Amino acid sequence: MNYLLKDENSIYYECGYSCDNAIFVQLGSESFFITDGRYELDARLGCRDNVEIIVDRDLISVVKKLLISNNIKKIIIDPQEFSLFDFNELSHGLKVDITFHKSFSQKKRIIKTAKEIELLNQAASLGREAFDKFSLNIYPDMLGLDEFRLTHFAKEHLSFQGRYELSFSPIVAINSNAAKPHANPTETQLNNNDLLLIDAGLKFERYCSDRTRTINIGSNINCSLLQHFDNLEKQKVYDIVLKAHESAIKEAKSGMKASEIDKVARDIINDHGFGDYFVHSTGHGVGLDIHEFPVISSKSETVIEDGMVFTIEPGIYLPNEFGVRIEDTVVMKNGKAEILGV
Amino acid sequence: MNYLLKDENSIYYECGYSCDNAIFVQLGSESFFITDGRYELDARLGCRDNVEIIVDRDLISVVKKLLISNNIKKIIIDPQEFSLFDFNELSHGLKVDITFHKSFSQKKRIIKTAKEIELLNQAASLGREAFDKFSLNIYPDMLGLDEFRLTHFAKEHLSFQGRYELSFSPIVAINSNAAKPHANPTETQLNNNDLLLIDAGLKFERYCSDRTRTINIGSNINCSLLQHFDNLEKQKVYDIVLKAHESAIKEAKSGMKASEIDKVARDIINDHGFGDYFVHSTGHGVGLDIHEFPVISSKSETVIEDGMVFTIEPGIYLPNEFGVRIEDTVVMKNGKAEILGV
Repeated sequence: MNYLLKDENSIYYECGYSCDNAIFVQLGSESFFITDGRYELDARLGCRDNVEIIVDRDLISVVKKLLISNNIKKIIIDPQEFSLFDFNELSHGLKVDITFHKSFSQKKRIIKTAKEIELLNQAASLGREAFDKFSLNIYPDMLGLDEFRLTHFAKEHLSFQGRYELSFSPIVAINSNAAKPHANPTETQLNNNDLLLIDAGLKFERYCSDRTRTINIGSNINCSLLQHFDNLEKQKVYDIVLKAHESAIKEAKSGMKASEIDKVARDIINDHGFGDYFVHSTGHGVGLDIHEFPVISSKSETVIEDGMVFTIEPGIYLPNEFGVRIEDTVVMKNGKAEILGV
Repeated sequence: MNYLLKDENSIYYECGYSCDNAIFVQLGSESFFITDGRYELDARLGCRDNVEIIVDRDLISVVKKLLISNNIKKIIIDPQEFSLFDFNELSHGLKVDITFHKSFSQKKRIIKTAKEIELLNQAASLGREAFDKFSLNIYPDMLGLDEFRLTHFAKEHLSFQGRYELSFSPIVAINSNAAKPHANPTETQLNNNDLLLIDAGLKFERYCSDRTRTINIGSNINCSLLQHFDNLEKQKVYDIVLKAHESAIKEAKSGMKASEIDKVARDIINDHGFGDYFVHSTGHGVGLDIHEFPVISSKSETVIEDGMVFTIEPGIYLPNEFGVRIEDTVVMKNGKAEILGV
């Protein structure tokens, strides 16, 4: 099979190295990593031995020459990985049949290897440690700080003070801001008895962690699943989300459709009358990208298999009041879902 | 003129608001901002009054309907802003003549308005304040810390503890790592008498700052241009780069070609025998994007005009030894270059 990759994580998966200006070319059994001079040394150190490294300013021209000199007739690309500009440059005057395979690399990566699961587990373990350290530092020192500062301190812990990159910019949201699934920080300050939602992850050797906790602010702050809210409505909603979360993980089995896992969580929230406030899918795959396959949604026909890694993250969002989401990342192993990083 | 925009900053420029899932459509004098339900409220608050907001899950379909219902025959897009996938969706079955204009929005944005210059000046001023605070905190408290931790603390100061986003991930590089123009952090620890290169910026209301200082680590750390290195080679190289930096700013005039500004800096470095070690352009435009027009390179034919904002950042990089770069962002005003943020 012949294919081109442009996305940084797609290329990393094939080469064990990547950078922000590279193209990967697979022609039958031969692999080529093309980059510019800035990355030559790192590429020679980082790429697997079977990958031939080519250094040039004009990556697209190198690709065209490779295709012509190897007399290639057909090549696959993912139309999401190439800009229209790059594609126009590539296809201009090129007599090669280019086939579009959407999510070509992500589909290859849906089943994780043992090594990948080890890295994802390590990322999740570090992520859990960071959550614990952050939560222990909140009370009483962070009372009065606003979401901007809280987000900064979450980054400080998640990155282990700069050692690890983050999977995404953390969401640290108080009360009504937590009712927005993708909340941005505001000047709202943290007070005693507030509800605080923390959604964050880090990258370990490029593999992402992803975790959400919704916690009660008081003298006994922790990131366990046992949370006690003085407000009865918050406690009720929290307990429903927790039940949905735990049930979906417990009932997830290899051989099920992804939609069936979504249904476990969704039915519990529906049955308690909050179905309209669970406004997203139950989960998503996690790997080199923070969002991979499988999608755990009501429409996903994907059959779950051992080696898949994905989040379970049901939530209930009551606009202008508060939101609760609880998320762990799981791996399918021996037919069942195991939480990573514990 | 009819055009489509997909890039977040290109859209922000037209609307005063943007988000990570939007398309902007200009049809003659009518402006449309298309996004999904997650961003509806923020879009209605943030977009200028003359922009019509359309909310839909399928942005491309909305664009096609708009083009058809308005009987549009020709439209411009920037092929760098659209993925091949989005373009295929857009053009499928659409009888509209689509013209490709590379860097369409960036070219419109090359001359900054008074309001934009005010925001860029404010960003630069905050950036300078952050450099000063960071440098004051280095000695002696950060001796022994590695580049990962130093980068983290640079981010802490640049973001004002989470209040501002960064223009890019800061470069904080010690000695030989500073010889890489785009150094990544390593475990190298900071010691007395080290050379430390800091290249960093923040965003104020989405407008970027960009600044580099190369400083000597000792008891009198500061981010001024007067640096004293015990090592004579470092001092010699520093003084050459400083002369190139100051001369380019002093001699930059509206009406010159960008290449002439580059030549001022490059000639000085060449004349001292370090031409082979100045491996990049003298500068780049700065605005909503950290890299905009004009490019200040030896090949750039762009004629410099009042209202352009760009960096002047000559450097000398001695592999495995050290690197020096000095950068300020300037605005062309009354025919001359003024450093922003001072």
